[in-house]
Amino acid sequence: MELIFLGTGAGVPSKQRNVSAIALTLLQEINSIWLFDCGESTQQQILRTSIKPGKINKVFITHMHGDHIFGLPGLLSSRSFQGGSDELTVYGPKGIKEYIETSLKVSGTHLTYPLAIIEIEDGQIIEDENFTIYIQKLDHGIDSFGYRIVEKDSPGTLLVDKLKEAGIMPGPIYQQIKENPVTTYQDGLIIHREDFIGPDKKGRVITILGDTRSSMQFRTFVKNSDVLVHEATFNHERQALAKQYFHSTTVQAAELAKASNVNRLILTHISSRYQKEDNQDLLREAKEIFSDTELANDYDQFTINKK
Amino acid sequence: MELIFLGTGAGVPSKQRNVSAIALTLLQEINSIWLFDCGESTQQQILRTSIKPGKINKVFITHMHGDHIFGLPGLLSSRSFQGGSDELTVYGPKGIKEYIETSLKVSGTHLTYPLAIIEIEDGQIIEDENFTIYIQKLDHGIDSFGYRIVEKDSPGTLLVDKLKEAGIMPGPIYQQIKENPVTTYQDGLIIHREDFIGPDKKGRVITILGDTRSSMQFRTFVKNSDVLVHEATFNHERQALAKQYFHSTTVQAAELAKASNVNRLILTHISSRYQKEDNQDLLREAKEIFSDTELANDYDQFTINKK
Ligand SMILES: [Zn+2]
Ligand SMILES: [Zn+2]
Repeated sequence: MELIFLGTGAGVPSKQRNVSAIALTLLQEINSIWLFDCGESTQQQILRTSIKPGKINKVFITHMHGDHIFGLPGLLSSRSFQGGSDELTVYGPKGIKEYIETSLKVSGTHLTYPLAIIEIEDGQIIEDENFTIYIQKLDHGIDSFGYRIVEKDSPGTLLVDKLKEAGIMPGPIYQQIKENPVTTYQDGLIIHREDFIGPDKKGRVITILGDTRSSMQFRTFVKNSDVLVHEATFNHERQALAKQYFHSTTVQAAELAKASNVNRLILTHISSRYQKEDNQDLLREAKEIFSDTELANDYDQFTINKK
Repeated sequence: MELIFLGTGAGVPSKQRNVSAIALTLLQEINSIWLFDCGESTQQQILRTSIKPGKINKVFITHMHGDHIFGLPGLLSSRSFQGGSDELTVYGPKGIKEYIETSLKVSGTHLTYPLAIIEIEDGQIIEDENFTIYIQKLDHGIDSFGYRIVEKDSPGTLLVDKLKEAGIMPGPIYQQIKENPVTTYQDGLIIHREDFIGPDKKGRVITILGDTRSSMQFRTFVKNSDVLVHEATFNHERQALAKQYFHSTTVQAAELAKASNVNRLILTHISSRYQKEDNQDLLREAKEIFSDTELANDYDQFTINKK
């Protein structure tokens, strides 16, 4: 499980930072990749990574500003051009369906794969076999959402020593025990899994917020995340500007991370007014509040290990 | 006057070639830049050139395929974000208005400059003080158009020796004579401009065709162009594919150039199946038919001088 930052800029692309897009690779877990936002040129950024568009089967849009959606028609079309056949689902605020359908219609694009477009609402929960995704409305003038991705817990490790002590020797039976609550051994012995397995492995929690004014009211939503991805359009000095334009500062993001017991904070969506040489200052002022902070640059990859 | 190729690929972007966009810089002539097509990531390509988006005041779309239009909402928005205030006119096939208006609406984009969107038709003529632009429907399955840009002739050079012989000595009067059909000299002498000026300087003709099957029926439209920009999606060997997908080959483009007495042919819209090392072969087979052929790569610039 990795986060790959494809675009870490704000509003307009610069030579240093493209507009917003983040890939969450789940190749080991479910053999697929999820994309969060898709600013213009995301497909071009992807060309310079190992990501295969055909593996992307969910796209989550945080809000409808152009720097977060204008790469979507191109990505959908190219995934088709390359012969993608697996279903793709796009989740996003109201308007996303009209935008995608109009773009595909006027350009005469006929996709080679099924496309589902789901318009989301505050409080909605998306659930599948492996993940539960919680959705929270943020504070950005227009509807902007955060996604809290919670990996389901997985069964613990088999207690091999204990099994041997009970006279159950290694073999295919171990796999059966792991997969079923109750297994019957050769001689009729009834084996309850719970007696021979360690505690559940906790799933990981990744929370990705769209553009927003920072607010302590999001504490519950981001609480205990292994990784919190938070925008930091402005530095601490410019907090009045941040408020005016419904954005956050480095320090505000760090304060939320600190108050919410998250493990790691990654800052993105950095204004193009800041140059490469400003990165250190931006990061430093956040780290003074919350030391496990990182500042994402385009193409940065962050591995998220199980605890 | 220069052509700057911002994207020279076909259908999908590759690491070598972005999707279609060509800038025609008219900075000396009318202090503006025209753009022909605007595939995704055109604004990102522009960041790596000297082009200022605020100087672009006309965009001509050849056809509605995604690789020719998906960069338009982003370019329009960023031009606004950067404070552009000069009017911009977009010309394009039916559908362009719905596409732009939907993209701006759903993204909540309010432009800082007036935007005019004009849907074009076969045979339409666009005229201003300096240029006449002819529009011709091509053969691409969906509506695709070519633009023939004809610079108006400008007055010739003053015949200074002849003026002196007639007793008219150098001074501000020379500028007056150049600018007016009839001028009265100090002593009441009537000077007719036509007697003291060389032949008109012929304006330049640049013809840019959208995606199309090549056809000799376009001979009249492209005739005598100083520069013809023609797609060459495929090499000669793949002419069956070219026909099937409503595209042209290198050799077909060269044959049209040869039959139409154009001065220079520039090939673009090269399929991503061809790698850098194929460029020489693609160019060679066109040059065997028409020697003044060039093959455009991203960021190539071609200066077009007056005759
Ligand atoms: Zn944004
Ligand atoms: Zn094309």
